[in-house]
Amino acid sequence: MHRKADHRPPRDWRAWLFGPPLRTADAPHQTIGKFIGLAVFASDALSSTAYASQEILFILAAAGSGAFGFVFPISLVIVGLLAIVAVSYEQTIHAYPDGGGSYIVSRDNLGQTTALIAGAALLTDYILTVAVSISSGVAQIISAFPQLFEYRVFLAIGFVWFMTMINLRGVKESGAIFAIPTYFFVITMFITVGVGLYKHLTGALGLVIDPPEIEVAKTLATVTPFLLLHAFSSGTAALTGIEAISDGITAFREPRSRNAGVTLILMAAILAVLFLGISFLTGKIGATPSEVETVISQLSRTVFSRDSLWYLLGIAATTVILIMAANTAFADFPRLSSIVARDRFLPRQLFLRSGRLVFSYGIVSLALIASLLIIVFQASVNRLIPLYAVGVFMSFTLSQAGMARRWWKIGHLKPGETVRERGSTLKHDRKWLLKMVINGFGALCTLVVMIIFAVTKFIHGAWVVLILIPTVVAFFLTVNRHYTSLARRLSLENFIGQPMRAGRHRVLLLVSSVHRGTWQALAYARRLSEDVTAVHVALEPEESEKVRQKWKIWGEGVRLVILESPYRLLMGPLLNYIEEVLSSQESGEILSIVVPQFIPSKKWHELLHTNTADALRERLLSRPGIVITEVPYQV
Amino acid sequence: MHRKADHRPPRDWRAWLFGPPLRTADAPHQTIGKFIGLAVFASDALSSTAYASQEILFILAAAGSGAFGFVFPISLVIVGLLAIVAVSYEQTIHAYPDGGGSYIVSRDNLGQTTALIAGAALLTDYILTVAVSISSGVAQIISAFPQLFEYRVFLAIGFVWFMTMINLRGVKESGAIFAIPTYFFVITMFITVGVGLYKHLTGALGLVIDPPEIEVAKTLATVTPFLLLHAFSSGTAALTGIEAISDGITAFREPRSRNAGVTLILMAAILAVLFLGISFLTGKIGATPSEVETVISQLSRTVFSRDSLWYLLGIAATTVILIMAANTAFADFPRLSSIVARDRFLPRQLFLRSGRLVFSYGIVSLALIASLLIIVFQASVNRLIPLYAVGVFMSFTLSQAGMARRWWKIGHLKPGETVRERGSTLKHDRKWLLKMVINGFGALCTLVVMIIFAVTKFIHGAWVVLILIPTVVAFFLTVNRHYTSLARRLSLENFIGQPMRAGRHRVLLLVSSVHRGTWQALAYARRLSEDVTAVHVALEPEESEKVRQKWKIWGEGVRLVILESPYRLLMGPLLNYIEEVLSSQESGEILSIVVPQFIPSKKWHELLHTNTADALRERLLSRPGIVITEVPYQV
Repeated sequence: MHRKADHRPPRDWRAWLFGPPLRTADAPHQTIGKFIGLAVFASDALSSTAYASQEILFILAAAGSGAFGFVFPISLVIVGLLAIVAVSYEQTIHAYPDGGGSYIVSRDNLGQTTALIAGAALLTDYILTVAVSISSGVAQIISAFPQLFEYRVFLAIGFVWFMTMINLRGVKESGAIFAIPTYFFVITMFITVGVGLYKHLTGALGLVIDPPEIEVAKTLATVTPFLLLHAFSSGTAALTGIEAISDGITAFREPRSRNAGVTLILMAAILAVLFLGISFLTGKIGATPSEVETVISQLSRTVFSRDSLWYLLGIAATTVILIMAANTAFADFPRLSSIVARDRFLPRQLFLRSGRLVFSYGIVSLALIASLLIIVFQASVNRLIPLYAVGVFMSFTLSQAGMARRWWKIGHLKPGETVRERGSTLKHDRKWLLKMVINGFGALCTLVVMIIFAVTKFIHGAWVVLILIPTVVAFFLTVNRHYTSLARRLSLENFIGQPMRAGRHRVLLLVSSVHRGTWQALAYARRLSEDVTAVHVALEPEESEKVRQKWKIWGEGVRLVILESPYRLLMGPLLNYIEEVLSSQESGEILSIVVPQFIPSKKWHELLHTNTADALRERLLSRPGIVITEVPYQV
Repeated sequence: MHRKADHRPPRDWRAWLFGPPLRTADAPHQTIGKFIGLAVFASDALSSTAYASQEILFILAAAGSGAFGFVFPISLVIVGLLAIVAVSYEQTIHAYPDGGGSYIVSRDNLGQTTALIAGAALLTDYILTVAVSISSGVAQIISAFPQLFEYRVFLAIGFVWFMTMINLRGVKESGAIFAIPTYFFVITMFITVGVGLYKHLTGALGLVIDPPEIEVAKTLATVTPFLLLHAFSSGTAALTGIEAISDGITAFREPRSRNAGVTLILMAAILAVLFLGISFLTGKIGATPSEVETVISQLSRTVFSRDSLWYLLGIAATTVILIMAANTAFADFPRLSSIVARDRFLPRQLFLRSGRLVFSYGIVSLALIASLLIIVFQASVNRLIPLYAVGVFMSFTLSQAGMARRWWKIGHLKPGETVRERGSTLKHDRKWLLKMVINGFGALCTLVVMIIFAVTKFIHGAWVVLILIPTVVAFFLTVNRHYTSLARRLSLENFIGQPMRAGRHRVLLLVSSVHRGTWQALAYARRLSEDVTAVHVALEPEESEKVRQKWKIWGEGVRLVILESPYRLLMGPLLNYIEEVLSSQESGEILSIVVPQFIPSKKWHELLHTNTADALRERLLSRPGIVITEVPYQV
């Protein structure tokens, strides 16, 4: 028999906080188009324009302001890399319409172990994205209101849980909420860059007035290749978040691949234009990198003026987008962990959806770990950022290498031949060689960047990630081992089922006092078996006497055992008696313990009632042959 | 059938932290003698000698140092009051050998409402005792190590939970732990006062060298009766804690009343001698009240010298006793709330004992509320202390008034006549009039003190308590109303039991996959009823196909329903199906839902398994006619 099923909405505080539960049938409507897709998945990538140029300047500053001329060339190289990676990912999106994150592509083409490395790299990076982007948003707020410095950790954690709540409401609504600030930022930045370029061309763009002092080393370094590489690797922060769309294809409306692919190209284009524009203007106005004032702020107040509305809007938009960037991680982390969980490398709960059709376990796990990171690193961006990006480039490399391998396999198919593999369909493609070269070259580039990054940032914190990723992989394997060994031990192969319905079925009915609830439970207990014993723990002599008297009337002839408890212990005497019963248990015999449980209509009334069934369950569930049944009664 | 029962010791982290569970039979050995009794119940009262004299000086300072001469006379009056209260309580202890706290005495003689007021007053006061005494202990530590000021709240809460843990281990062990510091304090103080008096008599006692400056008002007040009354009421802080023993008589070894009574008199004597001695010497050495240096410290360094060992010992002992004072509340709060809970005015759980034979719910509740208070008041003694003591004197008054009323009843018995009342036995007593006068006079005195206290401290915070006590009483009444109305609605009077075993018994068996655990659950389900339906939610198509195939082999012909769930919701389709089944339910019909539940051997493995039974329980227990049974399987 096969049935379609819908979802019954329960009414409680969750409905109020996260919205009423959605019917399963609503799920297709929970997918998003290109417009909202850009907002949900691009905020991370786009937000990096707010700091990428500045990160390059910071490194170049070691060689004095004379080296600042390298910003634009380095930015050009990065945009070139961006183009390669974007095209490479565009191919992935079409090859994997059901979601082609690094994990899936690696799994299908490079094997499970490699996939786990990619998965670990990405998951750690999503967590870091939340911690870093929210911390840097908070840092922006603090540079405006320094008196809030003391509360930075509280603020950051507040934002994390604010984002969590919005995301628990569901992807569509969170998309709508996030669309406004993302587009607000994009428009503000385009206007700033556009007006800046116009003023530059008309010669009206001056230099920054009173730029913040450069914090340079006492002895100036010369411009070495290592320095340029270091600056380049810092600037590649601009690429983080580019993979987000390929992980989240399933969130898009049909035709998914097309929608997702267009969004990706759109995102890359916006990112490239803004990043190049900012880097270019930065050089022209003579902006300097500083902890006190961001380069964006210097640019904005040079293009417009310090007290113009545009300046204020620019700063506000940057702050908001930095915090919003965390949302990309909130969209992708739960999705990826759900995929890893389906393969049984993460707890099964991450695989299921909640009433709002989102992966709430994943969302809450992400928020918890990110909060922990923020507390440990005291919301300091400087201490968090070196941990960031190694993982991203590791997963970039694996994903594109996997794609290259896939084209190689496709190249060896006969024309017209089609092979179904685990996650996707391999179909002969005449352009396989070109496509393989594109993905292969992308993989090579990102591998090189990853190595540059790991080397230049090693002592600053990249080493933490190089320890973290194997640890996460080890965790995946432990979880998997548990599930596989469990499945093996529970397997019905070679299992000789004991004969059903053999053996005695003893039932113990717990009686604290004799009332309608007890009567109901007694009725249930007698349905279970003929062999029922009522058990009462004598906490108070008068009460026990009442139980004894009433049982004579209402007990239906069932035997009543009264357990003494001179020191008012409930569980002690009970457990002892059960132990005694169990010790005389024969093979195939089952003991059911029936507990009448009052279910209060008001939640707080629960505090006024002991939940004996729960307490028994905690103590006894590990003993085979016992079933604890709570018979609820309501008034 | 009647059985004696012992207690099976489970082995877990609790055993490690709180000690192995005690057998019920050990309970008598958990009682204590006079020596440890004094340490457990007197630390609160005795610790007040550390600050009572100083509190008087603080008030007198308003009229300049000339008014300090009033300290000794005021102290004499307070000791007189102490003597009256102690004798009065001694009578109570003998009249109520099973514990004669204010609540019980009021309940038996003045009625339930009055008793609730006394109970509320005492419980709030116990909470305040913990907050005040630990905060003042921490203040002592901070005056030695000012750099710890920032961490005062953490420190205070740390101490609260340290005390909680010790108390969860049980009264006897905590007694042993507390005996050392209490006696250390008593001995150190006796030596200080003794040596001080000796030096005074031999003329060797000088004045305080460099006393701290007095913080006096700019315009000196004159010594008015109100000022003296205010000083007196501040000094009555010395009496707080005197009632502790009468609440805790049951903790004493037999003969309880005698042991408790002797301990009370001993405690009062020590308290009187120390308090008078300190007040006397304080005047002689010209000590001044100050937030910077306590009077005890000034006394100690004048009697010995600043760098003597004795001085250090004195300060250490004072700090420790102040923190220990909280222990009295830890001993009495749970005991009193257990009594109130037995009368159904507080949650029933407070009435039961834990494996270590202590009232753990009460202990933990006390710690929680006290921690909250410490956080709210930022561990500030000055802000907490005015809340304190109104409640104590209120309960003193009610308790002694109750006793007076009791003697009045006894006075009207015929010689030799005996009447059993709820908590105690009324027996003719020739000296009833004298005893009534003693208790009545005690009640009058403490009533007057309470009024003085409430008036003089009203604006400083006493008003909070005057709001709090009625609130607590209202809570008692709400809880009681819930229990009584529940009992009425569950009553079997006029209840016509439905015929047992009528109606259909449907069983739904949840199947996520088919394995040995499922087999066990199926066997159980078929024992329950002939009418079993297996239900599987199709989260993954391949998995569902496997279930369908395996069920053909292992399903014993039981019908299998597969619920579609395209969006990987588990609960949604399930609840919906159950709802459908329920809608066709006839009267008298019962639905049992059997859930196979894996019980992992390692605790952390629980994180890897969904507990479907718990989730169903949360959603469905409020619906009548459903029983959820989890059939555990272990590997």
